[in-house]
Amino acid sequence: MIEVGIVGGSGYGAVELIRLLNQHKEVEIKYIFSHSKSGEAIKNTYPHLQNSIQAEFSSLDVKEVQCDLIFFATPSNVSKHFIPDLIERDIKVIDLSGDFRLKDPNVYKSFYGEQPAKQSVLNQAFYSLPEWSEVNENNQIIANPGCFPTSILLALHPLITDELIKLDSIIIDAKTGVSGAGRSLSQNVHYGEMNENLSAYKLGGHKHIPEIEQYLTNLSNTEVNVTFTPHLVPMTRGILSTIYIDLTKDYTEESLHALYKDMYKDKPFVRIRDLGDFPKTKEVLGSNYCDIGIYVDEKRNKAIIVSVIDNLVKGASGQAIQNLNKLYNFDEMEGLDLLPIYP
Amino acid sequence: MIEVGIVGGSGYGAVELIRLLNQHKEVEIKYIFSHSKSGEAIKNTYPHLQNSIQAEFSSLDVKEVQCDLIFFATPSNVSKHFIPDLIERDIKVIDLSGDFRLKDPNVYKSFYGEQPAKQSVLNQAFYSLPEWSEVNENNQIIANPGCFPTSILLALHPLITDELIKLDSIIIDAKTGVSGAGRSLSQNVHYGEMNENLSAYKLGGHKHIPEIEQYLTNLSNTEVNVTFTPHLVPMTRGILSTIYIDLTKDYTEESLHALYKDMYKDKPFVRIRDLGDFPKTKEVLGSNYCDIGIYVDEKRNKAIIVSVIDNLVKGASGQAIQNLNKLYNFDEMEGLDLLPIYP
Amino acid sequence: MIEVGIVGGSGYGAVELIRLLNQHKEVEIKYIFSHSKSGEAIKNTYPHLQNSIQAEFSSLDVKEVQCDLIFFATPSNVSKHFIPDLIERDIKVIDLSGDFRLKDPNVYKSFYGEQPAKQSVLNQAFYSLPEWSEVNENNQIIANPGCFPTSILLALHPLITDELIKLDSIIIDAKTGVSGAGRSLSQNVHYGEMNENLSAYKLGGHKHIPEIEQYLTNLSNTEVNVTFTPHLVPMTRGILSTIYIDLTKDYTEESLHALYKDMYKDKPFVRIRDLGDFPKTKEVLGSNYCDIGIYVDEKRNKAIIVSVIDNLVKGASGQAIQNLNKLYNFDEMEGLDLLPIYP
Amino acid sequence: MIEVGIVGGSGYGAVELIRLLNQHKEVEIKYIFSHSKSGEAIKNTYPHLQNSIQAEFSSLDVKEVQCDLIFFATPSNVSKHFIPDLIERDIKVIDLSGDFRLKDPNVYKSFYGEQPAKQSVLNQAFYSLPEWSEVNENNQIIANPGCFPTSILLALHPLITDELIKLDSIIIDAKTGVSGAGRSLSQNVHYGEMNENLSAYKLGGHKHIPEIEQYLTNLSNTEVNVTFTPHLVPMTRGILSTIYIDLTKDYTEESLHALYKDMYKDKPFVRIRDLGDFPKTKEVLGSNYCDIGIYVDEKRNKAIIVSVIDNLVKGASGQAIQNLNKLYNFDEMEGLDLLPIYP
Repeated sequence: MIEVGIVGGSGYGAVELIRLLNQHKEVEIKYIFSHSKSGEAIKNTYPHLQNSIQAEFSSLDVKEVQCDLIFFATPSNVSKHFIPDLIERDIKVIDLSGDFRLKDPNVYKSFYGEQPAKQSVLNQAFYSLPEWSEVNENNQIIANPGCFPTSILLALHPLITDELIKLDSIIIDAKTGVSGAGRSLSQNVHYGEMNENLSAYKLGGHKHIPEIEQYLTNLSNTEVNVTFTPHLVPMTRGILSTIYIDLTKDYTEESLHALYKDMYKDKPFVRIRDLGDFPKTKEVLGSNYCDIGIYVDEKRNKAIIVSVIDNLVKGASGQAIQNLNKLYNFDEMEGLDLLPIYP
Repeated sequence: MIEVGIVGGSGYGAVELIRLLNQHKEVEIKYIFSHSKSGEAIKNTYPHLQNSIQAEFSSLDVKEVQCDLIFFATPSNVSKHFIPDLIERDIKVIDLSGDFRLKDPNVYKSFYGEQPAKQSVLNQAFYSLPEWSEVNENNQIIANPGCFPTSILLALHPLITDELIKLDSIIIDAKTGVSGAGRSLSQNVHYGEMNENLSAYKLGGHKHIPEIEQYLTNLSNTEVNVTFTPHLVPMTRGILSTIYIDLTKDYTEESLHALYKDMYKDKPFVRIRDLGDFPKTKEVLGSNYCDIGIYVDEKRNKAIIVSVIDNLVKGASGQAIQNLNKLYNFDEMEGLDLLPIYP
Repeated sequence: MIEVGIVGGSGYGAVELIRLLNQHKEVEIKYIFSHSKSGEAIKNTYPHLQNSIQAEFSSLDVKEVQCDLIFFATPSNVSKHFIPDLIERDIKVIDLSGDFRLKDPNVYKSFYGEQPAKQSVLNQAFYSLPEWSEVNENNQIIANPGCFPTSILLALHPLITDELIKLDSIIIDAKTGVSGAGRSLSQNVHYGEMNENLSAYKLGGHKHIPEIEQYLTNLSNTEVNVTFTPHLVPMTRGILSTIYIDLTKDYTEESLHALYKDMYKDKPFVRIRDLGDFPKTKEVLGSNYCDIGIYVDEKRNKAIIVSVIDNLVKGASGQAIQNLNKLYNFDEMEGLDLLPIYP
Repeated sequence: MIEVGIVGGSGYGAVELIRLLNQHKEVEIKYIFSHSKSGEAIKNTYPHLQNSIQAEFSSLDVKEVQCDLIFFATPSNVSKHFIPDLIERDIKVIDLSGDFRLKDPNVYKSFYGEQPAKQSVLNQAFYSLPEWSEVNENNQIIANPGCFPTSILLALHPLITDELIKLDSIIIDAKTGVSGAGRSLSQNVHYGEMNENLSAYKLGGHKHIPEIEQYLTNLSNTEVNVTFTPHLVPMTRGILSTIYIDLTKDYTEESLHALYKDMYKDKPFVRIRDLGDFPKTKEVLGSNYCDIGIYVDEKRNKAIIVSVIDNLVKGASGQAIQNLNKLYNFDEMEGLDLLPIYP
């Protein structure tokens, strides 16, 4: 049994970590930290947790905290201030924010608006998409992938490793439920204006772009640029990414499908759909699954990959627990063996 | 042609006045006032109005403004500061807020938290539920009814005038779409938390209670108290009030229905549904209709009245224009002859 | 470990049983029956179950089936044809449909349109609201309560046992998400017409009325009639019941609240909210909780009880598993120790 | 004043024609036809129309009907059986279905599953996207564009005419509200399953593909193929198309924007958004507007065009009335001068 703390306790990432860790046999939640709500009963913010979580929110003191691992479910530019001291004290960290995902400080600054952590600490961070990353007990800082990148990189990874696509052809049209915008108030996610409404946003400027490009560049050993357009959809949870690519050579739908089936045959959370079947976001809701559907326009050598996740589970807290399981060599599905909630 | 101004221009009441007055042959919008956004282009706040409304928001100067009538679509405790000066200058006012609805200053203070306008001005205000009020050209201040009271009083009026109900038996279970809470941000109407969620709120304490009781008391010449529970429903527009009453004597469903049909036969915006047919909120969406369904439990002498409106039209801006039409002796349906938008 | 079958496998009740039993350490699902889809892969109907549930749907043969218990998650007037043969073979049954809830065949016929099972079998059925029913190993047929009655009877039980209310004063205004209407298609739950729409339905005629009245009559030893109006709300899951009652004597809010806290102190799935705090449906979503809030109008001796459940969990499949746990003397929370999913 | 009939009266296209024609000074609705509901009161199907539309549904008899023009708001493969006889009798037709949009009978058969009307009648049909088509009084059959093509062709037209794009690079990721699927029941638009759900459908096979390709091919005099993926979004109304293209040469965002502003300067229903501003579907809801936003990735010579419409107005009934206005030389905005309904 390991003991963990959660920073950013009043946000949606934290509340989802609490829900999932409640099922985990090897983890005990010792602390729920919230700077802004320290000392307040958790049930005042989250009535749904009453009778289950007795504790109050507390404040993180990096010198005093005593536990094995701390999750950061915080906005950008927060965890970088705490993590250096924690790893000094041999407390492991899984960071759900973007602070430790990018290796190039200039890119970080350009997309996140501030300087990142210093390079020596950045270097210790390990970006772990758990299906394809070799996490081990020596990792001190796990940078948990962003929600959009998770859905996209799981879909693109097989194509890149097999050099099947023209790397300059990647167009990603992504759609997310509103919980991805977090719990902070803003006019565009005010119910009356978000309900029955659909929009594209941050064209060409979303901070998940460099994260996607860094991964694809590393994997292909070629500089990759992508076109990425996120959209906000009137639903609470779910991401669906529609990915358009040009194939490098003639490839049948069957052979591409077989490739995906093979590459993911041992990955319990990725489900490759039968040909002709495309996943819907509700079919993974509340679960850690990523479901992928495949289409090939054989005449024009173009493929479309459709990938869905629950942005708060596989796109955030579930994947963080999956990373924890790999870090401690627990069963990969421990705490995550939940079926989607339907309807 | 009369010229009007709209105060509270960045709120939902104002934007709905703009939509409806755009259809009105006798009214021209001269000013759209917003204290907080004065000088800004309206399309920055409301992109849907671009190419249609060219003006910027401006600031209301009660000494300088030149028009026939001003609508106040403001929060509570705003219009009372401006209206006294405006009526001095013979500018008429229709107030969509609650500032001039209650005649008893102590009740106002208890529910609205501040002192109302001074009594001499309050006395000039005329509370006008247009189906049952005798508005005329001498009225200077029209207090436009609240959204819940509109749906409730239209449903109860025939029963009261005919002394058909036990006045202490009235229980109103009301449900509203989220736009009733206005455009101001708050956690409970944040999309992620409001979507797929349903709640009761302000039990026993909603400020529409004294408004309902004042009307029923005046109408019946007996002090009336009601039980009123509002609920917040995950949809943008619409109010449905389910009203439970005890009848004073045996009354068949047919006879009660006939009474309603008769009382509303000349009221174009109130549609009494056939027996066995109960209205849905979507069936009045975007229109000025109030639809009413009637049920009688003949064994137990109890009746249920179901009433629906669009809270932003018949419950606010549409009714305000209906009051304007009566004030200026225009056709009652002018600007309001819009069918519900369906689906 | 016991083995179970589920009848009505293509409906929402069944799919929720599958999700929850997946977490249950003492139960294995052996059969998923669907008459209409026998032989088809379950993933064709429910893609979200792929890789998790391998089996096809099969057809129930009451003479051949081999397991300990069978759940019926079927429409009305189905289970009554199968259960007599099953109990002959000592297979226990938990019936989520209404077939075995009512003791009076005439009432059944009037509300369900057909004759019920024969009286000797009806007599063996045990209606079990698990918080207040003494289920034991001798029960062969458990009649699982309906969704609305669950939310209502848990809220009213403490008042009845303490003779606190005027029994002829009960008015229940209930609101349900759309999944309560099941998976069968009909125009009123077509997305385009149900979305952004709210309505009352089956005034005075809903088949949960006799179920509520039978329970209250038994508990109070007095014939009880209630006014019950269900409403359909544009959301998938959740029931909120607002219950209006007249108290028999002066009772403070604090004392009524204390009574509820006391009566439910050992019932893990019922959470009495603090005074002034009223539950929202989302705060129990996906869980087996019933949350209850209490309001007293001390001047008028009236109380309002607000009760919420997830209609598919505590209102159906979760409660069925809770009944199974009691039947087999398992831990009451086994398989049900899930926090609500939020947001 | 002209007299019109509407075929397909129980569908959403018809009900929207009724709403809009109710505002039209030059048109009177003489007939509302519905084969399946002939003789039934319209208010039984559409309670929201009661007191407004008194007529019953009737049955279309092509030999007897007496009016100037008939709208077909029918499913595919219906209007082709009636239109030949109507034009024989000099009754004009505006067809909202796909029956007369495609000129190549083989393509029609491949996408619509049946033979189209005979070639001599097909040849008389005029496909009219009213912003760019020269409708005149000699047209007998107007083929009204499909909902997706409307949003897409208005966005692409300026680029094609100026030869700015690589014609083989067009990728269209389109998203629609559920009303586009019509009023017929099916499992995937059952509320419980459509709500909180998002999916791609008919990859590579949607029948709007040949319609888009035919228009672009005609306009460019080059055979054009497009990639088109529609998605179903949990909202009632609205289409948002995100269109990805490669530019033929260096083009700045400003110059592309200026081109669009110029080309649409005299088209009252197309609003080109300011640079950096992208339209949301709710900003055109209920109106005949098409709003367009423009983004250029100047480094990579790629552009993204975002276009929104209300699928039932500009994408169907509103555009049909716009075509009628052009056919009879009425003011183009007559009956359509409605602001979007917001929120």
